[in-house]
Amino acid sequence: MTETIHRAHNFNAGPAGLPLEVMQQAQAELLDYKGTGMSVVEMSHRSKEFEGMITEAEADIRELLNIPASYKVTFMQGGASLQFSMIPMNFRAPGASADYIVTGAWSKKALGEAEKLGAARVAASTKAGNFDRVPDSLDLDPKAAYLYYCSNETIHGVEFFQEPEAPAGVPLVCDASSDFMSRPLDISKYAYLYAGAQKNVGPAGVVIGILREDMLERVPENMPVMLDYKVQATEKSLYNTPPSFSIYMVGLVMKWIKKNGGLAGIEARNKAKADLLYSAIDASGGFYKGHAQPESRSRMNVTFRLPSEELEAQFVSEAKKLDMIGLKGHRSVGGLRASIYNAVELSDIEFLVQFMKEFQTRNG
Amino acid sequence: MTETIHRAHNFNAGPAGLPLEVMQQAQAELLDYKGTGMSVVEMSHRSKEFEGMITEAEADIRELLNIPASYKVTFMQGGASLQFSMIPMNFRAPGASADYIVTGAWSKKALGEAEKLGAARVAASTKAGNFDRVPDSLDLDPKAAYLYYCSNETIHGVEFFQEPEAPAGVPLVCDASSDFMSRPLDISKYAYLYAGAQKNVGPAGVVIGILREDMLERVPENMPVMLDYKVQATEKSLYNTPPSFSIYMVGLVMKWIKKNGGLAGIEARNKAKADLLYSAIDASGGFYKGHAQPESRSRMNVTFRLPSEELEAQFVSEAKKLDMIGLKGHRSVGGLRASIYNAVELSDIEFLVQFMKEFQTRNG
Repeated sequence: MTETIHRAHNFNAGPAGLPLEVMQQAQAELLDYKGTGMSVVEMSHRSKEFEGMITEAEADIRELLNIPASYKVTFMQGGASLQFSMIPMNFRAPGASADYIVTGAWSKKALGEAEKLGAARVAASTKAGNFDRVPDSLDLDPKAAYLYYCSNETIHGVEFFQEPEAPAGVPLVCDASSDFMSRPLDISKYAYLYAGAQKNVGPAGVVIGILREDMLERVPENMPVMLDYKVQATEKSLYNTPPSFSIYMVGLVMKWIKKNGGLAGIEARNKAKADLLYSAIDASGGFYKGHAQPESRSRMNVTFRLPSEELEAQFVSEAKKLDMIGLKGHRSVGGLRASIYNAVELSDIEFLVQFMKEFQTRNG
Repeated sequence: MTETIHRAHNFNAGPAGLPLEVMQQAQAELLDYKGTGMSVVEMSHRSKEFEGMITEAEADIRELLNIPASYKVTFMQGGASLQFSMIPMNFRAPGASADYIVTGAWSKKALGEAEKLGAARVAASTKAGNFDRVPDSLDLDPKAAYLYYCSNETIHGVEFFQEPEAPAGVPLVCDASSDFMSRPLDISKYAYLYAGAQKNVGPAGVVIGILREDMLERVPENMPVMLDYKVQATEKSLYNTPPSFSIYMVGLVMKWIKKNGGLAGIEARNKAKADLLYSAIDASGGFYKGHAQPESRSRMNVTFRLPSEELEAQFVSEAKKLDMIGLKGHRSVGGLRASIYNAVELSDIEFLVQFMKEFQTRNG
């Protein structure tokens, strides 16, 4: 059967490809989930079937990341963009200031939302080099309400491989939307870490939050109910109807990660993929040029340029004819971007690298 | 093929059943949407395929409801519960007050969120009769920022069949989550009408908003970006990654409604279903007792009691064995509730009514 399924080489930046076997299970169960006579999307979120699903998804996330019992795990709506507002609303007291590390478009947007509602400082910015690296040093406020950063910037293709160190007593907050579950993580370093699902762990429509319980003491009274982390945590993400299909899919992806060696296995796989692609870039004698500095190179989003914009356009167009989708870079960086999240196979990278060599031979 | 598909009699209050042919199309396309080699959930929301999908879903909503060009249609996240906060944040100026008609749990929650953030008045409440009707009269503030109501209360099973009349110049705002697209609607009477999808038009995770453009002038500066109706309208619901699968499914349901006679056809179908069920209640000589007063009886959620709580529990349990799902009433009303949204078939009601008769014969 699988031979007949048409699957593109999906290099989309997100929403992105999901593992074929996950998609096949979702398809098989779509009309009748485990003999209930209903689809997951047709079930009450108060049913024992759905409660089982969300409980198991949470348990698997906890197991994979080894999350301490003192953390809450929530499933929310609104994307990272709503988190940008919720974080200062919940965690920054009136008059207090928060520190932001700006390493690309997403952390910049988060800073912008925080500034709308109160005081925020830039603890570091790599804008001068068009966000081609993580910062060497930080200018930290020891009284900051929190220190915020984005662990992987999808547009610029830079990733932190070590957490920034916050001053004692300053909670570390992280947008891990695009490298969540791509490698092991020491959750105990974070006060709050969140991720939109649509890169490595599921369809769009759900954000996973991992929150150290003591942070809930900061939540002000009378928050709009859906923006209140205390409500989300207390109600176990079921204050209102959750995005059930996306949560179900996240659950399936967690099972797939567990089957594939857990986060250590996934990291090895992702590292091999990224190494292969960056090696091809570096071996091209300058025909392909990476945007990010080597030590900050993202394993998720590989950004690179060709000698001219004409060649870049030609590359994208020819690649598309070979069923390689999503390779056009974001306009703020230009060039090419291959997003190689969890579900991208090494064989997809091999196919791309082979094409890169041929393309260079023809046009170099 | 269809004979072998196990489908329950789905009386869930939401998420609820969707049309079988819609589910079948979603299943067929789930691995490879129209030859793209990708699932809808694996596609960029900036791709021409997804833009085509969301544009067509909007066009079909506009066609079905005959929406004037002066209205914007948006697809948002966060459910009705987030709308409860967004409405006063966007449409009620500082110091102004808004009027709320309270006919059940949902309008009460909406009022509660509005009160957190400013002034709100109760223009009518039917709480005294445990929300068994829509109000006979309204106490209206001619200077209200808006008049808010919920067109169908799912828990109590009461529905407005005529819009409340707002004073001249006072915009009418409606939560139509549970009867949206169940019958024709005169959109020109509304300044803002919204609906969560998970009752009549799709899976959970998306809210459809229909907004008269002049309301955008009220939106304050510096709103949290995801709560800003101006951003949602200007960016055509693509400011950030939208809940793409839910939007896709809404699009499929719109096609199904069009194929089934549009909203007039759907209304006739829904009316026949509700009439059959209420007639069975009324013909039971008091064994079954409807909660809502006849003139306020919802065509979507039929709430009724049996002579004792023991019999109610027995009814739910026996019905479940016959694959009738979701009939237990909400604890605040008790008894039974049959939610009979668009996708419920007349044959499902016939099956339920037949069982009601048998049950009464055995226990009456």
